[in-house]
Amino acid sequence: MTEVATARRSRITPEREAELYEAVLDLLREVGYDALTMDAVATRTKSSKATLYRQWGGKAELVAKAVRHNKPGGAGLAIDTGSLRGDLHALTLSSDDCEMEQNSALMRGLAMAVHGNPDLLEAFKEHLIAPEMAYFHQVLRRAIDRGEVRADNPAIDFVMHMMIGGFAARSLIDEQPPNQAFLLSYIDAVVLPALRAPITG
Amino acid sequence: MTEVATARRSRITPEREAELYEAVLDLLREVGYDALTMDAVATRTKSSKATLYRQWGGKAELVAKAVRHNKPGGAGLAIDTGSLRGDLHALTLSSDDCEMEQNSALMRGLAMAVHGNPDLLEAFKEHLIAPEMAYFHQVLRRAIDRGEVRADNPAIDFVMHMMIGGFAARSLIDEQPPNQAFLLSYIDAVVLPALRAPITG
Repeated sequence: MTEVATARRSRITPEREAELYEAVLDLLREVGYDALTMDAVATRTKSSKATLYRQWGGKAELVAKAVRHNKPGGAGLAIDTGSLRGDLHALTLSSDDCEMEQNSALMRGLAMAVHGNPDLLEAFKEHLIAPEMAYFHQVLRRAIDRGEVRADNPAIDFVMHMMIGGFAARSLIDEQPPNQAFLLSYIDAVVLPALRAPITG
Repeated sequence: MTEVATARRSRITPEREAELYEAVLDLLREVGYDALTMDAVATRTKSSKATLYRQWGGKAELVAKAVRHNKPGGAGLAIDTGSLRGDLHALTLSSDDCEMEQNSALMRGLAMAVHGNPDLLEAFKEHLIAPEMAYFHQVLRRAIDRGEVRADNPAIDFVMHMMIGGFAARSLIDEQPPNQAFLLSYIDAVVLPALRAPITG
């Protein structure tokens, strides 16, 4: 039993593991999931393919682990500016343009792969979507409590679609990565008017 | 001269060509651009790889041609219901749920590939984005003329981001393809309130 456990246990240090996951995420951003090969990971990280396979089993497992290791969003969870606009702007300003470009590339690199790969989809939702969603729920709850947003406004259910959609559409439509300036304008022009709208017939 | 021209000219009928492009689009939806191989196209269409390469040069050219051949959107260009809400709903209802699912899959299959492939990006924008955009511009112009939308409403510049974003975010967030019911609710909850909003400070 002890020997089996030892054999299974990771032989690499946490620092080395983090370095390896970062390299996998970089490759995902550069070439996307399909074109990412274990050969490329081995070369980039100066590992042997045998080690990679022994440690992670395969590409899907390695990529899912790397996504899980990605520092969670939701850094904004502590932000409370006292207004809906202030909170949404503060969240946007908590990622610099370089981080936004990286997240946009990562989303693009994974978009096709998560379909038909349940483990990867789970990692993607849990580590890239859910932390943002938790933050938006808090922000909206406070806005409802303050009377800024009506509790029955149907736009509440679409807050993630608005934000992620604007983020994703920016690259597709404008051929440039989303950045702070774009997102701040988009929040003011789209997200806030929808969330603050009175109910109309 | 004549011999060269003849040698270059297509030996396949327009029907056969259309069939082939449809197969390429189907494969794109199923596996995405990176995983699409000329072997798979040859097998699916019962062609020889030599013919495919002679006719199209390579995968990038073949896929760009197939996207260009895709029936353009903008079927809605003739729709004029007399109201902004009516026009946006009518456009949504002009594609059935099956077509929406197909377009969503095609967008996903191409999202990574269009980065770093200028010819494919051009085809994507010209045939998948531009026709929709032309329609929205017409709809908005009429809404401004009727006084439904203020000409200086900043949401006008984001109408494509709202629509394409909602469409794309649906699969990512809800793990289901966008359909008519989703888009109609999204238009009422997000797009119309943003476009009809008065200017706020």
